[in-house]
Amino acid sequence: MRVTLRALVNGYGFLGRRVARALSSGRVPGVRLVAIARSTGYVHRPEGLPPEALDGELDRLDGFVEGSALQLLEDGKVDLLIELTPTNLPTGEPALTHIRTALSRGIDVVTANKAPIALAYRELTELSRSTGALLLFEGTVGGGIPLVSLRRFCLRGDEVLSIRGILNGTTNYILSRMHFEGLTFELALREAQNLGIAERDPTLDIEGYDTALKLLILANSVMGLDRRLEDVRITGISRVTADAVSLAKEAGLAVKLIGSVSQEGDLSVAPRLVRLSDPICVHGTLNAVTFRLRTAGDLTLIGEGAGEPTVASILNDVWEVVTARANLTRA
Amino acid sequence: MRVTLRALVNGYGFLGRRVARALSSGRVPGVRLVAIARSTGYVHRPEGLPPEALDGELDRLDGFVEGSALQLLEDGKVDLLIELTPTNLPTGEPALTHIRTALSRGIDVVTANKAPIALAYRELTELSRSTGALLLFEGTVGGGIPLVSLRRFCLRGDEVLSIRGILNGTTNYILSRMHFEGLTFELALREAQNLGIAERDPTLDIEGYDTALKLLILANSVMGLDRRLEDVRITGISRVTADAVSLAKEAGLAVKLIGSVSQEGDLSVAPRLVRLSDPICVHGTLNAVTFRLRTAGDLTLIGEGAGEPTVASILNDVWEVVTARANLTRA
Repeated sequence: MRVTLRALVNGYGFLGRRVARALSSGRVPGVRLVAIARSTGYVHRPEGLPPEALDGELDRLDGFVEGSALQLLEDGKVDLLIELTPTNLPTGEPALTHIRTALSRGIDVVTANKAPIALAYRELTELSRSTGALLLFEGTVGGGIPLVSLRRFCLRGDEVLSIRGILNGTTNYILSRMHFEGLTFELALREAQNLGIAERDPTLDIEGYDTALKLLILANSVMGLDRRLEDVRITGISRVTADAVSLAKEAGLAVKLIGSVSQEGDLSVAPRLVRLSDPICVHGTLNAVTFRLRTAGDLTLIGEGAGEPTVASILNDVWEVVTARANLTRA
Repeated sequence: MRVTLRALVNGYGFLGRRVARALSSGRVPGVRLVAIARSTGYVHRPEGLPPEALDGELDRLDGFVEGSALQLLEDGKVDLLIELTPTNLPTGEPALTHIRTALSRGIDVVTANKAPIALAYRELTELSRSTGALLLFEGTVGGGIPLVSLRRFCLRGDEVLSIRGILNGTTNYILSRMHFEGLTFELALREAQNLGIAERDPTLDIEGYDTALKLLILANSVMGLDRRLEDVRITGISRVTADAVSLAKEAGLAVKLIGSVSQEGDLSVAPRLVRLSDPICVHGTLNAVTFRLRTAGDLTLIGEGAGEPTVASILNDVWEVVTARANLTRA
């Protein structure tokens, strides 16, 4: 079962650099990192990029060419696209075009970019099915917490009845600071911004859109629904008051931004009261998700929802592509 | 990718009945339930046992034969042994002999019986490797919580540095009642026995042996160590006082029976103080396990550690056997 997949890492930010380094140092057998691209151009070396070639900015690396990752896909120079460009709403571009191009040419795709998967799940999975190219996206939801692959490999023969979870670390950090320190929303947000946990424009996180995108991906992939962003009722946390949080605390509860898919298939994102003893009631930047399963009952997973841990989810998807291709090659 | 595996369910207690019923009603495609056995005899129908044939005690079912499951294995009547006899210490028998016999004849094995896997992990995995027969045992640890398959399919390319967890629901129930209601150990134990949560002879649970067996299975399978039961330092909960629990509670802590494998590979089971805000600090009969991973950080799983949820783990293993055999057949 020997294959060697030629991989392109597209996007050279926090995740792209770490994934490129891991692949070039052989963390996943059967993969050769042959190209790295970002918006301004790419480096392509058919013989593979060694770790020592990756120091510094992409446009200063040896062999940098102005141009687009699309060319590498269209010219058949790679077998696997690892799409790590940032989430872009409302279009999902340019990631959506990259993924479409790859899948339609039979090139496998691993991505951590939420937008294309949330916005075009049905189109992309149908395309994947029709060409036989794989589409894996564990890194889009829950950072280092395996949820999509968990459903696929560890819960076979069972049924996911409903999902609820804390899917956004920034809002959980803010609500945790309000809960434990009695801060106002504005103060906690400013602190999170100063620490680099919240972005300068925190709208996507605090108004619940980031949670909604992730919830949508889980609803469609893990529960097999066919929902769109318009189907999610979304309320953010910007109007949660210090008083509300402190009253909840006195009653043994905490206010958490909860994304949920009900047994009837309704999707909502809203601040909700959660018992402190509920396994889902985690604090700081942690994420937590409970799957209610027909046979296994409630199963909760807790972990870091962003940053370095996401690299593990991406690498596991890459590993899965290699395994699947090796099985096919053997046939 | 069509295979039809002829399955034998050995052991016809709580789990055996439920797994037999699930398989006979087609919950896992590619498996035909052809036999059910227990200590006194078996029923064997090459054309498959339909759900309506499973009502009542085994020895009253149509076609019941006095004899041993071993005959079915030795006569090549089955392709898959699902071993669900009860855990037996210190020998692990008769399950150990059943599993050895199956593996040495190339018959795949799925089991929820802790003893053979904890006592003879190395021998059985080497036997499995040498004959190519699969050995899967998700149901032995953590009930419905996937831990072994999680490591195998969802954490590839990462490294498990250490493990700590609550792996026994009975002791967690007792300690939770002591924590929340101020009961003494003796009272909480009696209550658990009256509710059927603790056994008449509760030694294996309360003295920490059940936790030690499960920890050993995780250490050897998930962390790739080579440890034996003698290597586990074991302290049970029978000497935990109501005073100790209440002092801990005042300090925002709870006493929990924690099994842990340290980064140095040391195994221990003992009552430990856990912060109430620690994700692992779950109550009632829940189990919780934290894997510390090199890249993904701390990942915690929480769920029911026994009963019906274990059926889901067994069925997922059966599903995996079918998938693996279908991949091999295609080759």
